[in-house]
Amino acid sequence: MAWPARPRCDHTPAWGALRSHHDAHFKPGPGSDGFSLRDAFATDAQRFERFSQSAPHLFADLSKGLIDATAEALLLELAEQCAVASHRDAMFAGAQVNTTEQRAAMHWLLRTPRHAPVPADLQADLASVHSTLDAFLACAERVRADAAITDVVNIGIGGSDLGPHMAVRALERHTSPGRRFHFVSNQDPDELTSVLRQLQPERTLFLVASKSFTTLETMGNARAAKAWFEAAGGSDIARHFVGLTSQPQLAQAFGIHTTFDFADWVGGRYSLWSAIGLSLAIAIGEAGFRAMLAGAHAMDRHFAEAPLARNLPVRLGLLDVWYRNFHGFTHRSMAPYSSALQQLPLYLQQLEMESNGKGVGTDGARLPYATSAVVWGQPGTNGQHAYFQMLHQGADRVPVEFIAVRQPPPNLPDHHRQLLGNALAQAQALMQGRTGADGHHHCPGNRPSNFLVLDDLTPASLGALIALYEHRVFVAGSVWGINSFDQFGVELGKQLAQDIGPRWDSGNTQDLDPSTAGLLRHLLATHG
Amino acid sequence: MAWPARPRCDHTPAWGALRSHHDAHFKPGPGSDGFSLRDAFATDAQRFERFSQSAPHLFADLSKGLIDATAEALLLELAEQCAVASHRDAMFAGAQVNTTEQRAAMHWLLRTPRHAPVPADLQADLASVHSTLDAFLACAERVRADAAITDVVNIGIGGSDLGPHMAVRALERHTSPGRRFHFVSNQDPDELTSVLRQLQPERTLFLVASKSFTTLETMGNARAAKAWFEAAGGSDIARHFVGLTSQPQLAQAFGIHTTFDFADWVGGRYSLWSAIGLSLAIAIGEAGFRAMLAGAHAMDRHFAEAPLARNLPVRLGLLDVWYRNFHGFTHRSMAPYSSALQQLPLYLQQLEMESNGKGVGTDGARLPYATSAVVWGQPGTNGQHAYFQMLHQGADRVPVEFIAVRQPPPNLPDHHRQLLGNALAQAQALMQGRTGADGHHHCPGNRPSNFLVLDDLTPASLGALIALYEHRVFVAGSVWGINSFDQFGVELGKQLAQDIGPRWDSGNTQDLDPSTAGLLRHLLATHG
Repeated sequence: MAWPARPRCDHTPAWGALRSHHDAHFKPGPGSDGFSLRDAFATDAQRFERFSQSAPHLFADLSKGLIDATAEALLLELAEQCAVASHRDAMFAGAQVNTTEQRAAMHWLLRTPRHAPVPADLQADLASVHSTLDAFLACAERVRADAAITDVVNIGIGGSDLGPHMAVRALERHTSPGRRFHFVSNQDPDELTSVLRQLQPERTLFLVASKSFTTLETMGNARAAKAWFEAAGGSDIARHFVGLTSQPQLAQAFGIHTTFDFADWVGGRYSLWSAIGLSLAIAIGEAGFRAMLAGAHAMDRHFAEAPLARNLPVRLGLLDVWYRNFHGFTHRSMAPYSSALQQLPLYLQQLEMESNGKGVGTDGARLPYATSAVVWGQPGTNGQHAYFQMLHQGADRVPVEFIAVRQPPPNLPDHHRQLLGNALAQAQALMQGRTGADGHHHCPGNRPSNFLVLDDLTPASLGALIALYEHRVFVAGSVWGINSFDQFGVELGKQLAQDIGPRWDSGNTQDLDPSTAGLLRHLLATHG
Repeated sequence: MAWPARPRCDHTPAWGALRSHHDAHFKPGPGSDGFSLRDAFATDAQRFERFSQSAPHLFADLSKGLIDATAEALLLELAEQCAVASHRDAMFAGAQVNTTEQRAAMHWLLRTPRHAPVPADLQADLASVHSTLDAFLACAERVRADAAITDVVNIGIGGSDLGPHMAVRALERHTSPGRRFHFVSNQDPDELTSVLRQLQPERTLFLVASKSFTTLETMGNARAAKAWFEAAGGSDIARHFVGLTSQPQLAQAFGIHTTFDFADWVGGRYSLWSAIGLSLAIAIGEAGFRAMLAGAHAMDRHFAEAPLARNLPVRLGLLDVWYRNFHGFTHRSMAPYSSALQQLPLYLQQLEMESNGKGVGTDGARLPYATSAVVWGQPGTNGQHAYFQMLHQGADRVPVEFIAVRQPPPNLPDHHRQLLGNALAQAQALMQGRTGADGHHHCPGNRPSNFLVLDDLTPASLGALIALYEHRVFVAGSVWGINSFDQFGVELGKQLAQDIGPRWDSGNTQDLDPSTAGLLRHLLATHG
């Protein structure tokens, strides 16, 4: 399927109108913030209702954002002028939206129900998704039934690590007790070593997650794990190692007999829903994993069907554009008020920055405007005791995104209320500030935040939340006119690392720049 | 001791000269980066030597930075015109450099050797430091000798958590085996619950770390830990709980008999060196802890004595100012190529952003220039598979700070070389880029990085590294003319949280802004 050519965002009328509107109503001047959230609430009694909405499994309040009704209307015009909806429809039709690699981006198909209507040319893909899903969930249930296996070690990096790691930690409360989950990603041997120290070979299942089965870090760790397994008296590699890969013959050569595949239209950072999620499936079981897929699918339908003005991924993606290109904000600080969501900011770093950290349009031409912000953060209340000082009183305004969970955990509801109370109070403090105090106690206020509330922290709501972020990233990338699905920027460093490899032995620094040569000599002074 | 009044940095001649120099030689224009690192190396054969240096326990290469000899000379003039050296001397003389709270900032005294020369009026403080140090190190050795204690749980938040947590993970290789260390900080009860699940009361030592012994999160977790301890059949609170606090009578009321104190001139984010480090002392022992203090002290002496032009904390702090106020960079991405240093970016977030995330000068007047950057990052090679795409090809330039460890671990030297090779290659790729490729493969290059090399990852080198960052933050804060030692910005949120507390039961939303009121109603729909 082809989709219409789309104009570059900064060439649309809406872009110019947004610029003028920002200059007139939002631009801070000497002694003025340009836009007052307090005044905005005072003059628009419907502001909270206007800028908040429900979506599957969650609720979002964007009313404490530096935005008004005119800006939102113009942003929706921008989305129309950039044909974001037809771009979205193209993605959901299986078109090659990953233009540079001539591939579709069909992570959404991984959570499409077996008998849902899909275009005729995707029916075989959907059947294949479900046969692999059935197979790896059956494997997960076999492992869950096997009391001998007490430890599951996922060896993978990037998209083969961050998703399952984040989700296993998030859903610990939905995990049957008695089994530990470990995630080994780093090339630094320390990480694997400190995990192996806790393990016994006959009680351990290793999952080797690498699409190509050649990822340097992952294969290094997998070989070291296998060597440890054999040295510690383990036998039956076939029982204790599983491969999550598109290259089963390479896994076979490694000694692995059980592998689960995924299609080339599953990008690494969108692969939690595929066999890459096997560790999560073992943790929460087949029913839990299917519930997570259903939650994500509900968000897919919301994104595909809701009118743009009440379409949460669209509104959030447009807000990101508004903040990045008009306000000039370079950050978004994530504040999940849930220690179970502690890995979420790391997951989002890859999802957002690897997808939209691009400087050229789909035509390969350099873009004159900024793209992805830097996403970073820590769970609340920890962040309050670390860097919130800067958020409240620092020179810059940093948008904050709070995430809270409405349903209290089974015990300790009072703790939960205190936690939510802190999240509310921080958002309130950022907005209202404290004036009248002396300079050192003065908080300028008027600092923007979004506030998301998950109905509960369940597989379904986590699935919906992650799909929300995937689609929000798609929307911003679509407006920016970039390909959110490639990552060519990571190649150069890999190439250069290969060039450095042989130099440790040779000591040869020829053709290196003086800094790299000098550092290598310094390092070799011990390594020689 | 008083120190001379210091002019505001932007009123100095050097500031204006830096502005002109930046405009003339560094400002990117259409089709030009403004400054070419490749050209800089080509035209100055001494660039690597000029911009690299040793300091205690480490080596730093700043030559891949967007800086030249003129800029560095002007920055040193800026430091002189801002009287940074006398401000530093005042700190080391015990003057009240924490002006808003009328206190000294003497974390450096915590690592001053027992018989080192100090001003006469600090001799009693130094004696007191050593008597507390001897006492808590003796306690650490008693715990280490007690095989019955297999688990140590530090309950604290912010500065009572981030420092020991970072250091215990960093020095795992120097920790005697057979004992696990847990860090519980978050108000979210999930965190404590998942730790308690792994524990037996009679084998556990809880450290309750709170200067005031009233920190909301810490006391909530401490009470819950005590309740669990008693319910699980534990007796002898006095043996299994230790307090790290200035309020021993409050600890006593809690049932704690053993407490270690610290002075009011130890700020939370500078307290790793005090009794707050007890968990670390248990991990690495008295000798290890004393070695860490000695490493930090060596860096203190370097900062106090080295000429500014070869004074590493001074050069790094000035580079931070150059990047923040002239280049306009809003970030620094930390890339420690060592999984043991995984907690370091979180530690530095507090150290840097809580210290220098200020918008007013020491006189309380609003400042017209930016202060602390946002510090964030993940260990390499993990970051390469997450957000390095954006660092290489994104629209913004984000300075990166690499940290590598020269000495390979006892086993697996090949892994270590690959890890170092990746760090070198990433820094090289950021600088040189890839031109001539098509748009999607093009990497603009000319992206700045610092490269620090620790001689080894030992208690001494870690101590030196942390002291380096403390002093660097001091230097930047000193130029900016802010008080790096207070944190009044965190008060407002705490106050507002107290106001929200009773509303859960009353459901009263009066006097709340419409957004906070709307969110509270939404949350109460389940909590009611």
